[in-house]
Amino acid sequence: MIIGAIEAGGTKFICGVGNEKGEILDRISFPTETPEETLKQAVAYFKDTGALAIGIGSFGPVNMDLSSPLYGHVTTTPKRGWKGFDFVGYMKRHFPVPIGFDTDVNAAAFGEVKWGAAKGLDSCVYYTIGTGVGVGVYAEGKLIHGLVHPEGGHVLTRRHAEDIFEGLCPYHGDCLEGLAAGPAIEKRWGIKGSALPADHLAWEMEAYYLGQAIAGVILLLSPKRVILGGGVMHQEQLFPLIRKEVRKALNGYVAAPEILEDMDTYIVPPGLGDHAGLCGALALGIKALQS
Amino acid sequence: MIIGAIEAGGTKFICGVGNEKGEILDRISFPTETPEETLKQAVAYFKDTGALAIGIGSFGPVNMDLSSPLYGHVTTTPKRGWKGFDFVGYMKRHFPVPIGFDTDVNAAAFGEVKWGAAKGLDSCVYYTIGTGVGVGVYAEGKLIHGLVHPEGGHVLTRRHAEDIFEGLCPYHGDCLEGLAAGPAIEKRWGIKGSALPADHLAWEMEAYYLGQAIAGVILLLSPKRVILGGGVMHQEQLFPLIRKEVRKALNGYVAAPEILEDMDTYIVPPGLGDHAGLCGALALGIKALQS
Repeated sequence: MIIGAIEAGGTKFICGVGNEKGEILDRISFPTETPEETLKQAVAYFKDTGALAIGIGSFGPVNMDLSSPLYGHVTTTPKRGWKGFDFVGYMKRHFPVPIGFDTDVNAAAFGEVKWGAAKGLDSCVYYTIGTGVGVGVYAEGKLIHGLVHPEGGHVLTRRHAEDIFEGLCPYHGDCLEGLAAGPAIEKRWGIKGSALPADHLAWEMEAYYLGQAIAGVILLLSPKRVILGGGVMHQEQLFPLIRKEVRKALNGYVAAPEILEDMDTYIVPPGLGDHAGLCGALALGIKALQS
Repeated sequence: MIIGAIEAGGTKFICGVGNEKGEILDRISFPTETPEETLKQAVAYFKDTGALAIGIGSFGPVNMDLSSPLYGHVTTTPKRGWKGFDFVGYMKRHFPVPIGFDTDVNAAAFGEVKWGAAKGLDSCVYYTIGTGVGVGVYAEGKLIHGLVHPEGGHVLTRRHAEDIFEGLCPYHGDCLEGLAAGPAIEKRWGIKGSALPADHLAWEMEAYYLGQAIAGVILLLSPKRVILGGGVMHQEQLFPLIRKEVRKALNGYVAAPEILEDMDTYIVPPGLGDHAGLCGALALGIKALQS
């Protein structure tokens, strides 16, 4: 059984095919240009694969309201050509198969639930910390959308006492994304995060912000696992620092052994590594086929 | 069809009976003492009602894990006699009918979805701001539990520039509950909130904290309605102040007309008024009967 998968990022498009076991059998990637330029390549890629369904995890914001005529559209992005683009409609016109669709981060959360670090659990929260901060939410066995979909990268946290950086978010200045995404680290320290030593103050600050946000999510949603992916989280020294901040912020209040005793297995990297997004899209395709 | 309902608060116990239309036909209330003292009265009340099921919305934390032998227990409360008490088990021993069980705030959210301000919606967040701050979460048509259950009253917010009060939460000091619950207002200003004039700085500060927390919930969960109940919200001047803070915090980022244009119908008081909790317990009872 061949299923198609698209991880549609704001800068990079990844297409692949896989099977119902979550195995990616083939993949290609190319830069995300206008929808026409980009999807021409995607259509050419999937044309002869015989994919029975295609799952898409897309950068957003996207319309996830099944009752809306705008379902499956990318909505308000500044990205050229994509504002108001009917992503699902375009794919349906070229491939008369079920099309699964969700945000890139919800897709990644779903992939982790099917085959990764949250396998078999009925809830998890997936963060990607990279050029932006995105959050996918899976709760009570369902991907959460609501009015729009989670945008938890933009929550406010308290400021670190030594941080005078004003933040980079065009909407909120010093929200989590504005302070903790990769570009914020680079702008604050004048050097790419990957070039900073592991014991640099930058990482303590990063963990302070992420830890607060994650503690907030734990209080609000009580997820059964918290998964942290994205380029910034390749800095593995962040994991113990973040767990420490979360423990400090919760201060024993949430009385679950997973949090009080086993935080090393509670706040974890993606089990699918950097393939969480594409595997998640694959999982969305499988779900679309089954429903 | 007669269904029993219990709104088990930390200080006050309310028992009632109602029907499948959400009509409360009778109710009594008495102080919450030890489980034995309190539930003796509840048992006596329900004894001859012929209730086909009983729903309970309980103060917490409670165990909501259906696969756990501790399901239906109150867990870590400091309240005398209630720590580790098997609430559902006790009721089942006295009434061989289906027992619905959830937190008081999840119950209230559910009541509002069935018959109140979120009627017919598949998501809402319910806040109670009173002696504490509690949050119930309903998303994608389900009450959210996860590892434990939502405890969103304890999130951190940024401090108001003019607020020097250290906060009252025994766990977190100046978390939302520590700064914005009724006792915090009274301690900060040396007078009960209900005695403060409507244009007092206290309410601007209150709205500042609640607005931040609600903006965070909107970003993370994108609920279709936000309902604010509890004693503190009897101060109706808070609603426009809170909406203003939420609008400021989001700054146009969540592009939904419900938020950008119709915030007066998006952040609202409970449609069931102070009966949200008991009606919610009734709804839990009906759900238990149907499942």
